[in-house]
Amino acid sequence: MYIVILAGGSGTRFWPLSRTSRPKQLISITGDRTMLQRTVERVLPLKPKRILIVTNHLQADETSRQVSSYDTIPIDVISEPMAKNTAPAIGLAATIIAAHDPKGTMAVLPADHFIRDEEALLQTISLSAKSAANGYLVTLGIMPTRPETGYGYIEADMELRGDGPFPVVRFVEKPAFETALSYLQAGNFFWNSGMFLWRADVILEEIKTYIPELGQALAKINFNSDVWELSDLKSQVEVMFKNLTSVSIDYGVMEKSTRVQVVPVEMGWSDVGSWSAIPEVVEANNDGNFLINTGDYVAINSKNCVVYGDKQTIATVGVDDLIVVSTPEALLVCHRDAAQDVKKVVEELTARGATATIL
Amino acid sequence: MYIVILAGGSGTRFWPLSRTSRPKQLISITGDRTMLQRTVERVLPLKPKRILIVTNHLQADETSRQVSSYDTIPIDVISEPMAKNTAPAIGLAATIIAAHDPKGTMAVLPADHFIRDEEALLQTISLSAKSAANGYLVTLGIMPTRPETGYGYIEADMELRGDGPFPVVRFVEKPAFETALSYLQAGNFFWNSGMFLWRADVILEEIKTYIPELGQALAKINFNSDVWELSDLKSQVEVMFKNLTSVSIDYGVMEKSTRVQVVPVEMGWSDVGSWSAIPEVVEANNDGNFLINTGDYVAINSKNCVVYGDKQTIATVGVDDLIVVSTPEALLVCHRDAAQDVKKVVEELTARGATATIL
Repeated sequence: MYIVILAGGSGTRFWPLSRTSRPKQLISITGDRTMLQRTVERVLPLKPKRILIVTNHLQADETSRQVSSYDTIPIDVISEPMAKNTAPAIGLAATIIAAHDPKGTMAVLPADHFIRDEEALLQTISLSAKSAANGYLVTLGIMPTRPETGYGYIEADMELRGDGPFPVVRFVEKPAFETALSYLQAGNFFWNSGMFLWRADVILEEIKTYIPELGQALAKINFNSDVWELSDLKSQVEVMFKNLTSVSIDYGVMEKSTRVQVVPVEMGWSDVGSWSAIPEVVEANNDGNFLINTGDYVAINSKNCVVYGDKQTIATVGVDDLIVVSTPEALLVCHRDAAQDVKKVVEELTARGATATIL
Repeated sequence: MYIVILAGGSGTRFWPLSRTSRPKQLISITGDRTMLQRTVERVLPLKPKRILIVTNHLQADETSRQVSSYDTIPIDVISEPMAKNTAPAIGLAATIIAAHDPKGTMAVLPADHFIRDEEALLQTISLSAKSAANGYLVTLGIMPTRPETGYGYIEADMELRGDGPFPVVRFVEKPAFETALSYLQAGNFFWNSGMFLWRADVILEEIKTYIPELGQALAKINFNSDVWELSDLKSQVEVMFKNLTSVSIDYGVMEKSTRVQVVPVEMGWSDVGSWSAIPEVVEANNDGNFLINTGDYVAINSKNCVVYGDKQTIATVGVDDLIVVSTPEALLVCHRDAAQDVKKVVEELTARGATATIL
């Protein structure tokens, strides 16, 4: 098995901890290792043949640096010349794998998700491997725990089989609240986690069918089966990416293919989409606040606060439901319900011409 | 005229900007100079003979350092061996002045008050000087602007004279809200500002009458009329202070003396009692937030926040009525209605054995 880690994300939702040059997967939100490092470590017990990390050229160096100490499994960092969403990234990785091992199974995992029960993930991947080897596109479906309206859902046909994989009835994008509630109650709807298992040749075939533009572009590139990196194909890939349409593998392939299956999994998953998701991934302290990497912290009549600090002593007094993130360069104080507006801070600072140390 | 500045205050209500070793008067809350420096500069146009600053031994060095550049008027720093409230501090200063100039008039001013209209203060002091020379204890009464329940009030008999000084009917300590409201409406009640004008010999006489313990102790000390500092009397003063009862000049003398007058003054005064008083002394910016010494600041859906920072970029998102104070060592995030609880943070940190750099 091959592991493909999608680590090309950029984003400002974790400002000021994340920066343009240091997106979520490259920072440590919940512990001493970065989310990318935790993603790599999580799959090491599977003993994959190789791990391919697809990222973009701005983050390639830092990405390589962060995984340089894992020497039990060969790790390749594939640097995209520009971000074109997940289908080109996955297509590129599948093409490289197929050049060496056409029927090789690849598990695709985002680099910036939190998984509490890592054993459950590994069992689910093992459970799905046979379906993948048999030519199915297997997607991991997260058991929903709330009527979340921000995720995509996968409806499974669970009539026939026990643990799955189950045939997929349909994909539903971000539903309305009442719909989400009915999905939660129905029991056969799962969150689309963006984690997949399939054979390299099968996904390339499906890409050729449903995203012919991408399929043809990938087919034109002659990967050298002696190496696992782009090396002398870099300029060729650059031209290819420039002409590609941005498209996700979900929209481009999964929602259209007839070979899709879903395996439900309960693993304490969170995509840690913003600071307001921290309570999903960090235990509350005795006061009911959520501390990350904080030095001395004093809470006076204060609860449900997410507090990130380092060397500063931090005190919150008479405030609830706040996000407080202090770094040497920048400080964020944000209501937990307004975490989606953190990106506006970065937009405003960008408009003011702030320097890269802040952005 | 002599100016006596009471600069012995300690306190934690402006933590983390103020520290035990750096109380409110020694920090800059509203501009580039400290409150002590602003107090000194404010009275320079009066061309006083001398300025005596009474502080305690812990802050004497920093106090001297902060006033060392004012060389047009002689400034003496009188270091109390311990804090015993305002009556001993004022008695000590009066004794030193009386040793040189018994009938000299002294204006007593706190070192940590904010005054927007400094011209009004100077005019009021000039207006009061004749009454003081005639043997009255003149107190400056602030025109109330709200039914404040945290201050003492002075009731004036305003039947007879135009601008004052007026005879004082009585002093009232922190009234209930309804009472405070009736005072505000009555028009002859003023906030007790802790600013006074009197002759050195007169206040000493009144101290002798109403606080005999203090009067006798002061009378025993033979001040050398060649110098203005305690110099070789230090150990004598130390013994004397050790045996004194703590008492305020208001409670000890003003509430009992029959020679008290009040001069009303409207001068944009604030005692800047806590972080929640900042909106009284700082103009709101366009977003309706109150910035002190802040570097880059971004407010997204955020108003009525008091923000103190330095080099950090600070952003508030979706929050109102917060106090955010960030120093390199410590960060405070506090609701404006909970500013009185800031001292609990210092208590908690003290209990944890925090170092002096934090306290």
